[in-house]
This record gives sequence, C-alpha cells and structure tokens, in this order.
Amino acid sequence: MLDFQIILEAIYKDVIKSKNKGTVASYIPELACVDKNNFGVHLRTLDGKDYGVGNFNEPFSIQSISKVLALSKAIALNENNVWKRLGVEPSGNPFNRLSLLEIENGIPRNPLNNDGAIVIADILISHLKNPKEDFLNFVRTLTNDYSINYNTKVAQSEKNTGFNNYATTNLLKSFKNLENSVDEVLDFYFHQCSIEMSCSQLSKAFYVFANKGTCMLNKLRLTESQTKRINAIMLTCGFYDEAGEFAFKVGLPGKSGVGGGIAAFLPDNFVITTWSPGLNKKGNSKLGMLALEQFTTKTKQSIF
Amino acid sequence: MLDFQIILEAIYKDVIKSKNKGTVASYIPELACVDKNNFGVHLRTLDGKDYGVGNFNEPFSIQSISKVLALSKAIALNENNVWKRLGVEPSGNPFNRLSLLEIENGIPRNPLNNDGAIVIADILISHLKNPKEDFLNFVRTLTNDYSINYNTKVAQSEKNTGFNNYATTNLLKSFKNLENSVDEVLDFYFHQCSIEMSCSQLSKAFYVFANKGTCMLNKLRLTESQTKRINAIMLTCGFYDEAGEFAFKVGLPGKSGVGGGIAAFLPDNFVITTWSPGLNKKGNSKLGMLALEQFTTKTKQSIF
Amino acid sequence: MLDFQIILEAIYKDVIKSKNKGTVASYIPELACVDKNNFGVHLRTLDGKDYGVGNFNEPFSIQSISKVLALSKAIALNENNVWKRLGVEPSGNPFNRLSLLEIENGIPRNPLNNDGAIVIADILISHLKNPKEDFLNFVRTLTNDYSINYNTKVAQSEKNTGFNNYATTNLLKSFKNLENSVDEVLDFYFHQCSIEMSCSQLSKAFYVFANKGTCMLNKLRLTESQTKRINAIMLTCGFYDEAGEFAFKVGLPGKSGVGGGIAAFLPDNFVITTWSPGLNKKGNSKLGMLALEQFTTKTKQSIF
Amino acid sequence: MLDFQIILEAIYKDVIKSKNKGTVASYIPELACVDKNNFGVHLRTLDGKDYGVGNFNEPFSIQSISKVLALSKAIALNENNVWKRLGVEPSGNPFNRLSLLEIENGIPRNPLNNDGAIVIADILISHLKNPKEDFLNFVRTLTNDYSINYNTKVAQSEKNTGFNNYATTNLLKSFKNLENSVDEVLDFYFHQCSIEMSCSQLSKAFYVFANKGTCMLNKLRLTESQTKRINAIMLTCGFYDEAGEFAFKVGLPGKSGVGGGIAAFLPDNFVITTWSPGLNKKGNSKLGMLALEQFTTKTKQSIF
Repeated sequence: MLDFQIILEAIYKDVIKSKNKGTVASYIPELACVDKNNFGVHLRTLDGKDYGVGNFNEPFSIQSISKVLALSKAIALNENNVWKRLGVEPSGNPFNRLSLLEIENGIPRNPLNNDGAIVIADILISHLKNPKEDFLNFVRTLTNDYSINYNTKVAQSEKNTGFNNYATTNLLKSFKNLENSVDEVLDFYFHQCSIEMSCSQLSKAFYVFANKGTCMLNKLRLTESQTKRINAIMLTCGFYDEAGEFAFKVGLPGKSGVGGGIAAFLPDNFVITTWSPGLNKKGNSKLGMLALEQFTTKTKQSIF
Repeated sequence: MLDFQIILEAIYKDVIKSKNKGTVASYIPELACVDKNNFGVHLRTLDGKDYGVGNFNEPFSIQSISKVLALSKAIALNENNVWKRLGVEPSGNPFNRLSLLEIENGIPRNPLNNDGAIVIADILISHLKNPKEDFLNFVRTLTNDYSINYNTKVAQSEKNTGFNNYATTNLLKSFKNLENSVDEVLDFYFHQCSIEMSCSQLSKAFYVFANKGTCMLNKLRLTESQTKRINAIMLTCGFYDEAGEFAFKVGLPGKSGVGGGIAAFLPDNFVITTWSPGLNKKGNSKLGMLALEQFTTKTKQSIF
Repeated sequence: MLDFQIILEAIYKDVIKSKNKGTVASYIPELACVDKNNFGVHLRTLDGKDYGVGNFNEPFSIQSISKVLALSKAIALNENNVWKRLGVEPSGNPFNRLSLLEIENGIPRNPLNNDGAIVIADILISHLKNPKEDFLNFVRTLTNDYSINYNTKVAQSEKNTGFNNYATTNLLKSFKNLENSVDEVLDFYFHQCSIEMSCSQLSKAFYVFANKGTCMLNKLRLTESQTKRINAIMLTCGFYDEAGEFAFKVGLPGKSGVGGGIAAFLPDNFVITTWSPGLNKKGNSKLGMLALEQFTTKTKQSIF
Repeated sequence: MLDFQIILEAIYKDVIKSKNKGTVASYIPELACVDKNNFGVHLRTLDGKDYGVGNFNEPFSIQSISKVLALSKAIALNENNVWKRLGVEPSGNPFNRLSLLEIENGIPRNPLNNDGAIVIADILISHLKNPKEDFLNFVRTLTNDYSINYNTKVAQSEKNTGFNNYATTNLLKSFKNLENSVDEVLDFYFHQCSIEMSCSQLSKAFYVFANKGTCMLNKLRLTESQTKRINAIMLTCGFYDEAGEFAFKVGLPGKSGVGGGIAAFLPDNFVITTWSPGLNKKGNSKLGMLALEQFTTKTKQSIF
C-alpha cells in the first residue's frame, strides 16, 4: 500500500527547490503581496485520513476554485436552469476572453471561465434569499468548518480594478443573459472569489466530488449523475486554456485559482490540494502543477 | 455483478426506436450511401469476454478513429518529436477549422483535429520505411486480425473532394510544419482514415488504451505514462467541439469518426464500441452517443 | 449646369415609393418611436446655396454622426494625442464589436467605431474645462446655430440600456486606454450622441470638411492636411462595416448615424445630408443610401 | 501652375536619403534578389505629359497591382457575375489571411485580397478562350505597349512555394466558389502576378481609371459608374490592412504590390506611380508611400 505521507514529503523536497516559482498574480492588488515561497500540499482519503506537508494549514484566496462550489450550489438548486444559460465545452481561449461570448451571443461556453461563472453567480442571486450569507453557509456546511470567511478587502480590491469582469458582465447583460444588475452580480461574485481556505479545508470541501455527491456530513444532495457531470466539466474546463495540459500531465479532475491553489481528486479515493502563489503564464500555480504531476506519475493514481 | 449482454440489449431496443437517427456524412461521396439504419454495440472486458448487439460485426469506415491509432504509433516511435510540433489542448473549434492554425502559426492545438492528425501522418511518413504498409501492419498486430484493410475507393473519394484537407495541409506547409510533400502526406492520411473495422475489431484495437499500454498479444510498447496521456487527449479532444458534452454525458475517454463509429473505454475494465452512421450536427454518431450515455448512466461505470 | 432642386425632387419622388423602408433602431428605447415615413434631403453648396426636399428641416438624433464632430474637436485640440491612442484602419467588423479591441490590446482600429469614439470622448473630457458645455458650444459655433441642443431623454435612455457601450468602455479601461472614469466618459458620450439637428443644420456643420477645414464663419482651425485625414477616415470607416459598399455605390466621404441621418460631401463643392429613420441590416439609413446613390449616379458628382 | 518635374525631383532627393528602406519580399524566392536601392517615380497627366525621376523606366514585378487590371477585365466581361461571388468591403485583415474567408463561407470580402483575386482569376479563366494570352493582350492594349510580358521564372517560383495561395484556393474550392481546378486557377494567377512593367508603363495602364473608364487609345469599355466603383475599391481595399493609413496620409485611390510598386491617381488629373522594392511591415513599399505622402502634401492634390 502507498504511504502518502512519505510520498508527499519526497515531492515537497524536490519541488521546493525549483528556481522558477512563477509570478504572483498582480491584477488584484491585494493578492500581489503574498510571499511566493509559500508551498503546501494536503491529501485526504475518502475514509478520512489526512496527510500534509509545508503550508497546508495556511489560508489563501481560493479565487476561481470557488466557481466549482458555486456551480454545485446552482445545480443543487435547479440544474435545468443552469444548462439553459451556458454550455459545457472548453473554450480554447484564456479565462477572461470576451470574444467568444460575443460571437456566441452571450452564451458562455462553460461555467468555469469568468463569463460562465458570472452567469452562475446571477442564478444564485436569483435563487437565494441572502445570497452572500447563504453561499458562505453552504461552503461552511460542505467543509463542516465555520471559521471559513470572505476576505472583504480582497473583494473590494477586485471591485476597484476588475474592469475586465465589468466588461464581461455588461456584455452578458447586453445579450440579456443576466437577470440581476451588473453591480449586484459582481458584488456577489467578487465576494465568492475572495473566500479564504487552507489546503486542508479545501480537501474537505472537494470531498463531495470524490464521493459521488455526498459530502462529509451528508448534507449536500448531488446525485451521482450530477457529480459525474461536474467532475467532467472540471477535467475539460478546470484549468483555463491549460485544461488539456493538466489532464495530459496529471490526469485528475480539479480546479485552480489565481490565488495559487489547486484542488484535484481521484473519484472513490482521495482529494489532493496544493497551494503556491507563483503562477505560470496560463494562470495556474507553477509548483502546484509540478507537485501533482509528480504525484500521479509516482503513484500511478489517475483516472486514465 | 453487471450482466453486460442484458444491458446492451435493453439499450439497443430503446435507442433503435429513435425517430431522428441523424444525417449520414455526405462530404465523402463514398460514405454517403451507407444505410443509416445500421446500429451495433460491442463490449469487451479486459479479461477477454465479448458482448454484442445489432450490426457489431459489420465493418465500416473508421475515419477519425484512426487518428488515435496513428498518434499511438507516432508516440511509440518518437514521442519527443510529436510534442515539438503540436499541442494537447482542446481547440474550442470544429475539427476542420483553419482559423486557429493560422493564428497560432501552423502549430495544431492537438493531434485529434484534422490539422494535428495531418502532422502526425507527416511524422509517420518520415519514420516508417513503407508508411502505408507499415501502418496497416501496426493496426493488424494491435487487433491480431490480419483481415483488416484500407478501402481504397474511400481513400480515392476523399482525394478527389477533400479540398478542406488540402487547404489545411498547404497551410501547415506554408508554416513549415510539414516535412513531406502535401500530396504524399494526404495520400497516407486518406488511406489511414479509410481503414474498415467492425465494432468487435475496434474493441480489440482499443484494448491497449484500457490496459495501461499493453495490447492483447503484448506487442505494443506504450508506457503507462504515455497511455495516460493518450487517454487524456481522447477525453479532452476526442469528440471535436463536443468533447465537453461527451465527457459530461458519458464520462469515458474515446474517439469518434464521421463513418459513425465511436470507441470508448473504462481504464482497467472494458472497451465499448458503437456504430451507427447517422451523425449529429457536430459530426458524432447520434445513436452511438445516446447508447453510451444510457450505458454509463445505467451501469454507473465512468471515470468520474 | 446642374439644377440641384429639380434633381433632389426627382430622387425624393422615386425613393419615397420604396416599400421596404428599413427598421427603426430599437436598442435605444427613446429612438424606437420615431415615424419611419420621415424622409428629407438637403444640399448646400460651398457658395451658400441651399436646396431641400421632404423633412429636411426636422431635427433628429444625430447619434454616430457626432463622432466626426468630436474627432475634429479632439484633433483641433491636440492631434498627436489622438493617434497615440487609436488607429485609422477599417475594422472589417460591426461598429459595436469588442473582439478586435480585445485582440489588439485596447487600441481601437479607428475613431468612428464605438470603441474609438469612446476614446475620443475620453480625450475631450481630459482637455475641456466643461466638457458637455464646451462641446455643445463647438457644434453651435460650427453651424452658427445656437438652437442646437442635447436631448437629455435620449442620453438617459442610452445610459439605462447601453450595456454594450459599458462593456466596451470597461474593456478600454482594463487595457488602460481610458483616463477618466467609465461613468464620466459614457455620460459625455451619450450626451454627444443625443444631439439633435435637422438635415439643413447638418449641412452647415459638415461645411468645414468640404471647405478644406474652414467653417462657415471661419471659426474652426483645421489645417488642410488635418481635413484631408478626417475626410479619408470618413470614407474608409464612416459607414460601419458597409464603408466599402457606400464608397462603391455613392463615392463620397460621409458619416451615418442610427438615428437615420447621413451627412456626405464632395470636397470643394457641396454637402448633402439625408434623414430617414429606417435602417438596413448594417445600421445605415435605407432611403438615405438609396437617395445618395441615385444622386451621385445621376449627377456624376463623386470623388472617384 | 505646378511644375511636376521639379516637385518629383525634390521629393526624390529627400526620400532616397531614408536610412530605413524596408525589406525586400522574400517569400517569392525570385523576388528576393532585387536591389532595394532601386527607386523611381513617374507621373502622367491626362493630357499626356510625362514626368519621371530615378528608375522609372526599369521593369519590375507588378504582383498584386495586377489584381486591379484583372478585376477591370472581369467587370468589362460580366460585372454581375463578379459581385455574386465576392464583396466590396475592407477585410480588416492581412492580405493572405484565410480566417475571414472560412467564417464567411468562402465569399471573399473584396477582389484585392488574395482570396478575392483568385476568384477573379477563376472568372477570367471561365470567360476567356486563351486565358493567359488574352489577359496579356488586354494589358498590352491598355498600355499600347506590346513589349510587356509575363516573367515565367517568377511565376514558376511562386508555383513552387506559394503554399498559402494553394491553401486559400483549396478553401475556396471546398466552399464551391471556384469553377475551375485549383492548379489551373493558380497557374493563371501566378502568371498574372508575374507581369513586369516599369513605372512609366504602369502610368499608362492606370490612365483608364483616372479617365472615367476610357483608356488611352479608347479600347477599354468601362462605364463611368464601373470606374467609380473600381476606384472606390482601390481606395478602401487597395493597400492590404494599410488602406486606411494610405487614404489618411496620401488621399488617392491606388494599388500596391509586393514587388515594391504603387500606382495611384487623381481622377480627371493624373496617374502617379512609384517603385522601390523595400517593403514596410504591411507589405507596402516604404519609399513609395513616403514619396506619395510628400507629393499630396506638397501639391495639395488629393481626392479629399
């Protein structure tokens, strides 16, 4: 049997030596000051064993990783409504590109690029009584950890400088694929992205996807079929325009964020999460991808 | 335990009733005359058990399914050379679109769209002594079936009318991403696509991908890591611009062809193949996709 | 010698009979209610003679025609600054398309599509003390008509529904090609577009372009070279993605607006303006284009 | 009155001093060896006076300038057929780009980009008995100079390396916008482009466009309206994706070629031609554009 702790430690020692640790995202000013020497890896098996190395207990901004959680909530609320308003195909484009949305009349290609995630935010606002509060509660329930919170400084920072997201949201509105006001939707969306979690908390949050839709305390009702679909979307669209590369090298479904986090998992087996704030050119954590590639190569644990 | 024969028969009965059986591909005149009422499904487990319904023993033109076999041969010969000349990302575009190739200076996004498959054909021609003969032998060895052959009438039919492929190949040549002459490469490529197999033969050919790189008679040397990568590319790029949809609905890696065939598989478990010549708008077999969606939904057998 | 009055009357009689009068722009709610049976033509020679038929004295929303006036003001203030921030090439795209702006990193192709016109608005705001007041005065001086005014209801109507313009302006801001705030720039821009003029007033306003840069009362200082450039831009970019068609059929520099107005001119000779609110698919006045084509064909008066 | 000889000599002296003379086109190997210090300017008034400086009598490869002559012949033969198969709008793209042609289903934007010019070549082949002979005769008649000829080495050179044109032509064929075979059309097209003329011969050839459709010896029957249209297309599309810039700086209709030639004219007045083989990034002659800009600025002779 594999000894995950020993494997993670070996990988950590090797990967931390990388000279090129990538570039910390600077387009959200509040994120630019995080130390790029941070590096943590955490693994949690379905039967509840935990393994961790480095800064795996330190919270960071989960950013786009939140898109999967928001999608799950939207699907749990009303799946039909979701697929009327966006698709499930990889875009072949960077995550913040508007061109395709324009050509395709305001229908985002998938829920994990910015445009699609903003439509999901709109759906949540329409369905939830107190959107920001309810969504936070959902994430807390999922992880059974009530210390998780928004970082309002980060949310505010994006509100001041996120002109590309304002452009995207106005474009969606111009195509009548937005029910609520631009400001309302982006206020929610920037909060959603600002949630802070550590690797070990993220491992708990993603447990539901590795476990056929049942979360740790049995409180989220995703069907097996819904879970299959969400997992498939993560594999084909979860790493921006590097999804093919991640599937090719790592071979696990997952989701990355510009805060430097990655959450991935092997269905029926484990969740593995990494954090290192330095990003490669496509916006994915450099050390994180390296660690995960080594992990699946060494352990031969992948969906393929 | 699942009784695959009973399941396949139930699916067959249900799917064959579909009123809309799609449209037979007409852009290759020789293919246009195939009867669209043909429908077969075949499943082969890794331990060698076979299950089949309908026209599962009737040969058809495998067309783009051959791209995976050609890719495997190219990787077996010289993997490094492959990834210097093309990528592994979904294109977000139809399979025969030239625009992206032009914008990205003649580097195809992946080996399963036409442009990338043509580069793979070019690599095979440069590495094989008698390209057409050697490639056919490779496919025969893989399946341990020496009756498999090219359909030269279909190959000739494409040569006369495949202007889009001529455009693509000339564009590759203009970007200096083609070593051999346009005519030589397309002669090989049209032959490669014209190979005829039945579902049961295809199940044997794809055994290697479900079996970590070792084919039935142990004659193909793909490493586990190479197999993981090829399988990942099938999942992210194997169904044209419907790869997301296929992953979402079916949840298996695989490859389709405009001849109406689909080969898919669950690693370490089984290969499942379907054939029905009527295509949907994206160029994938209508009944085939339906059958596979029902299969993974009923059996809960998917990589996710 | 040509008798313009007789010619205009003959054209009017013929064109007004058209059964298909186009579609009134509906994306600005305030404009949607204009009667599409309105039709006027006016011609003013450089030596001050006036000819008019139909509703040539009735004011309408000049919309995009204002872009040429704003461009002229920006060039008169500081030409260098203008060409640092945008180009002079036709876009080959509809006037409100964002894709090209995104690909070209926030540098608009020309000052007569929406994106470029918004940059011009930004320049005017940075250079003028009281932007809205000063710009209106500039237009009034140009025409020597102090009754010309903004229609604040139309401006407000666009502010409420102009999501595409908000998307464009935020995209410009994200590329740092906007000095002022999005709201400030669009408030100015929507006012600029809401100016109301009649054909006869427009003929006076465009006199400066036909007269080598000297306006009627000699109060605008454009050099001959600046005028040549502005006129060239009108010819290549003045009719959205129908600029080629307009040059081909009419053969005069000019500018159209979605309010249904067109102003065109033959340098050193005359200005001719038309108004009819029904638009063709490209957003240009249907009867206006018809009338101008007949005019230059009958009189053989074109720059070619 | 302007003394053109003195003006041309002054411009010549000034422009020839430019340190950056551009880059000679290398994609046609036969053209790559032309000396880039060649520079000639020629002007011919409608009343038959000639003025020249530098290498104005030396023949060069007219390349894309031939597109206007081919278009004129096609229009003279059957104008309706032309506009059924292509448009009259600037493309906003480089002259050899395939993307737009693909998006717009094989209908070229205009007859002066490669795709449109190839359709014109196809039309000529369908209408002429001996296409190459007849077209050469047409050009000879137009200039009244029977020494003009194809350069078959240049034509052959393009045939060997013009993969981009083969791609374009096959794409047209795949969209069924080509009546004749790809090889036949390109053989004609490469010959058409290989015609050699000097500036003084080109001035005679373009006389017809400056003279309302009547050529020097009265042998070409273009109507005034046809001439207006051809001239308009030259202005909006004659300089690749620098047509706006040329109109802006020079303000004359005209056409350039990658051989380094430019022919421009002021209707009813004169034709001015330049030759210098060094090109700018957009493919237009560097010294030629400089000379023409100085010319229209000094003489204030432009259509605007």
